[in-house]
Amino acid sequence: MSLSIHGTQLSQPTRSVIEFCKFCRIDFNFIYVNIPKGEQLSVEFQKLNPFGLVPVILHEGFNLWESPAIITYLADAYDTDTQWYPKDRKIRARIDAYLHWHHENVREPIAGYVRGKVIGPLFFGFSELSEDDEVKLREKMHNSLRQISEIIRENRFIARTEQLTIADIFAFNEIFNTQIVNLDLSGYPDIVRWYNDIASIPEVVETSDGVIERFFKLKEAMKSSN
Amino acid sequence: MSLSIHGTQLSQPTRSVIEFCKFCRIDFNFIYVNIPKGEQLSVEFQKLNPFGLVPVILHEGFNLWESPAIITYLADAYDTDTQWYPKDRKIRARIDAYLHWHHENVREPIAGYVRGKVIGPLFFGFSELSEDDEVKLREKMHNSLRQISEIIRENRFIARTEQLTIADIFAFNEIFNTQIVNLDLSGYPDIVRWYNDIASIPEVVETSDGVIERFFKLKEAMKSSN
Repeated sequence: MSLSIHGTQLSQPTRSVIEFCKFCRIDFNFIYVNIPKGEQLSVEFQKLNPFGLVPVILHEGFNLWESPAIITYLADAYDTDTQWYPKDRKIRARIDAYLHWHHENVREPIAGYVRGKVIGPLFFGFSELSEDDEVKLREKMHNSLRQISEIIRENRFIARTEQLTIADIFAFNEIFNTQIVNLDLSGYPDIVRWYNDIASIPEVVETSDGVIERFFKLKEAMKSSN
Repeated sequence: MSLSIHGTQLSQPTRSVIEFCKFCRIDFNFIYVNIPKGEQLSVEFQKLNPFGLVPVILHEGFNLWESPAIITYLADAYDTDTQWYPKDRKIRARIDAYLHWHHENVREPIAGYVRGKVIGPLFFGFSELSEDDEVKLREKMHNSLRQISEIIRENRFIARTEQLTIADIFAFNEIFNTQIVNLDLSGYPDIVRWYNDIASIPEVVETSDGVIERFFKLKEAMKSSN
C-alpha cells in the first residue's frame, strides 16, 4: 500500500501521526511542508487539505486530514491491533473520548500560549501579546497542565487506560512544545515522571530529535532577517 | 442491551447523541440532568463523567463521555450501518475528520458566543461581556458561519459526503442554539437551505421540540428570581 504523510516535525500532530506509524510498523513516505514559508497555502497543498493544515495523509489516492481521524483510519486500513490504539472497543472509546476532549482542553490552551507568545508573532505576523492577554493565556495553559496532572495521578495514563496509548502521545507532543517558551514543568511532578517515560521511547526520540533546536535556529534566522 | 443517555435536550451534543440513536433505532433510557441546578457537579454524576459534562452514556456498566466518541462506540456496539455513520472506512474517516475539526472551528466559536452573551451570565455566574469581547466573539462566530457556508456550498454536506451524516447533525445543533441570541441567518443562504432540510427530519423535530421555548422560560424564571 502507498502512504504519504505531508507535514513537518515542527508540528505536534504531525509528530503524533509519524510516531503512530512507527509504533505500528506502517511504512510511509514523509513529504516535508515548509510552514514558515507558507507552503500549506499553495494551491497544490490545498488540494490535499482545503483548510491548509498539516498533517494530511494520502493513502492510495485517498486524502485525509485531522490527525486523530488519521489514526483511526490507518489502524483500520492496516488492520493493526497494538497497545497504542487497540481493536478493543472500550479501550478505543476511551482513547477517542480523550482525543476529542484534547482539542479544547489541551491543544488549544497549551499550543494557544506557545502560538500567542512566540510562534504567531514570529511566523504568522501576529502582533505581540498584550500583558493582559499574556496573563490570560498563561493561566489557561496552567489550568490545562493542572488538569492533565490530576488525570495521570489518578489514572496513570491520560485516556484512563492500563498502558500508554496514542492519547498520551498526543498530549505529550503538545507539552513537548512548551520548551519553545522555556516552560518549567517542575511544579508538575506527575507530568514530569509520565513525560520522561514517553520522551525515552525510541520512536519518540527519533521523531522529535532536533525539533526544538530547529525551532530556535528558525527564530534566530527570522530575527536577523528583520 | 441496556443503554442510558444522561444529559439534557438543552445541550447540543446531547441532542446529537439522542438523534443518532433514533436514526439507528437504538433503544435507550433518557436520564435528565438539570444543568442550571448544577446536577452535573454532584458526586453521583461525576462517577459517570469526572469532567462533569453532558452527555454521558452508561452501556452495560461502561460509562463514556464526549459525544463523537459515543457515536463511534454505539455504531460498533450495535453494529449499525446507516447513512449517518456508515461502516465504509473512507466515509467514516471524513465524518471523524469533521467531528475533530468541529470542536475548535464550529462548537467553540458558535457556542462560545451564545455562552459568553447569554448562557454564561445567566446560569454560570459569568460577568457580562465587555463591548470589546462581544465584538471579538461575534466576529469569530461569523467567521465560523462563513466557513460552514463555503463547505456546504462546495460539497453539499459538511463532511464532504454524498448524503447527510451525523457530522451535519452536530453542526446543525450548534447553529440551532443561535436562536437563543436571536441570530439572523438570512445572510447565509446556503446554511439556511441546508439547515431547513435538517430541521424537518422527524427525529430532529421531535428531539428539539420546545428547546428554545424552555430556554426562554428558564431565562424569565432566572430574571424574576434575581
